[in-house]
Amino acid sequence: MIRIGLVGVGKIAHDQHIPAIAADPRFDLVAAASRSQPDLGGLPVFHDIAQMLAEGPELDAVALCTPPQARRETALAALRAGKHVFLEKPPGATVSEVAELAAVAREQGVVLFTSWHSRFATGVPQAKAWLAANPVRTLSIEWREDVRRWHPGQTWIWQAGGMGVFDPAINALSILTEIMPDEVFVTDAKLQVPENVQSPIAGHVDMTTLKGAAITADLDFLQTGPQTWDITAWSDAGELKLSMGGAKLTIDGKVVVDGENREYPGLYDRFATLVAEGRSEVDVRPLTLVADAFMVGTRESVEAFIE
Amino acid sequence: MIRIGLVGVGKIAHDQHIPAIAADPRFDLVAAASRSQPDLGGLPVFHDIAQMLAEGPELDAVALCTPPQARRETALAALRAGKHVFLEKPPGATVSEVAELAAVAREQGVVLFTSWHSRFATGVPQAKAWLAANPVRTLSIEWREDVRRWHPGQTWIWQAGGMGVFDPAINALSILTEIMPDEVFVTDAKLQVPENVQSPIAGHVDMTTLKGAAITADLDFLQTGPQTWDITAWSDAGELKLSMGGAKLTIDGKVVVDGENREYPGLYDRFATLVAEGRSEVDVRPLTLVADAFMVGTRESVEAFIE
Repeated sequence: MIRIGLVGVGKIAHDQHIPAIAADPRFDLVAAASRSQPDLGGLPVFHDIAQMLAEGPELDAVALCTPPQARRETALAALRAGKHVFLEKPPGATVSEVAELAAVAREQGVVLFTSWHSRFATGVPQAKAWLAANPVRTLSIEWREDVRRWHPGQTWIWQAGGMGVFDPAINALSILTEIMPDEVFVTDAKLQVPENVQSPIAGHVDMTTLKGAAITADLDFLQTGPQTWDITAWSDAGELKLSMGGAKLTIDGKVVVDGENREYPGLYDRFATLVAEGRSEVDVRPLTLVADAFMVGTRESVEAFIE
Repeated sequence: MIRIGLVGVGKIAHDQHIPAIAADPRFDLVAAASRSQPDLGGLPVFHDIAQMLAEGPELDAVALCTPPQARRETALAALRAGKHVFLEKPPGATVSEVAELAAVAREQGVVLFTSWHSRFATGVPQAKAWLAANPVRTLSIEWREDVRRWHPGQTWIWQAGGMGVFDPAINALSILTEIMPDEVFVTDAKLQVPENVQSPIAGHVDMTTLKGAAITADLDFLQTGPQTWDITAWSDAGELKLSMGGAKLTIDGKVVVDGENREYPGLYDRFATLVAEGRSEVDVRPLTLVADAFMVGTRESVEAFIE
């Protein structure tokens, strides 16, 4: 049994982590830490990780669901206390810091897991297998959602380091880097940044591979009505489409996979396996693509965003 | 004798590469490629790398001095033609693409050298030795130069991907990542971006290490009068100062090294050694720090820059 503490009890913790941990018999949720001091039905809730580690029940592992800007110090505290660490995506505010966390995990002999939940969407494994067999010429990501609906009150998303529309779009990039047989890199980007915030509300990213695949990503945070989380790839063999964030897979118009969302149960299953095997899984490629897009992207100032 | 071709014949090629190659008996400069078709005293000058590779004299290696935005395709063409490649800094427009170039170099059995000229400044080796022995508590980078004096007409520097003031500042970051015994990462950044361009003209970057060193970088592209390229570090044992871009080393006010600039001769010496040993040297850490600063940095729009 892995005794686990949860740090950062916001929307994603309530919606996903707590139910997934509760449903997995290998985990026992024994404590949480949150400045907002939510009522979690009798679970001990501490002010922060330091208090949880000092005063809380014995822990084997910690799952971090705090915003990325503050994640490094929390992760360091947990690793230095000898706890296995599950990082919500993105694994850090910067690419460089994640390598450091991995080094500390090695020194401490504990497991670090940089989780990318969208890779556990139901259609992803078969999409990966198809793309391995059928070289992609063109791939299009369309990731359009309504920030007011999915990120209510999450002001951190608009601050520097919060990534704006890349907070959801990094999910697409995590699928992309999982399913493409070749490494992907950014060649150009355009970022629309509201005049009153620091992070983009929309964007377009051009990417490619060494084999010359033409990859584009169109990102929008102001999509009302139907929401779009689609990846479409074309090879000589036909068209592959992952929709609903990867839950549904269609090949040449024929539905191949259309399963229920099991992303977080999948993540905790992987984490339990990693802990059992004493093996870390650290992948910063999606975050590197975002950093590269910020570095090479052309910025355009657009209308202020008022939630 | 390494027969070398130079791609991109701008200021840095004229000022540094051509004299350094001419002075090193292990190299023979046999061709160049430049859209501006400069007169290089009888040296065959081609329009671009494709023409140079197809129609020019036999080459063993290529040095790329083109702006970073276009470097990837040129480097790929050279590597795929089986040439060793010397990349001027930064090694690419993005972090991700450099890993790809390294993979192609391995496949082709040729050498890739991501050069960081400031690491070859005279004071750097002794600064590194001192910092290995004396743990740093605080380190301050001040990198202030006059863009009009050092980068006349270099409009690419202001375009997206041109990095602005980080084009010189990456030199400081290349020294930093060379001399610090621990890995460095960005915690915060502030970037001042003129309203008429895409890249910062000034900035401040906060960095740290796992041991908690407090590292700051103050960057300015509008410094007139005396120019400042200083790195000062404080440990319990005293104060170390690298000035003049690393050429001069002072410890507790005593001059330890004050040598002439041998950066580019040092780079070509290293490249010749790497080619002789069939070994690549690929380091993207300075570029990763810049990408991280762009990703987490707060941007402020400032007065337009008119050269």
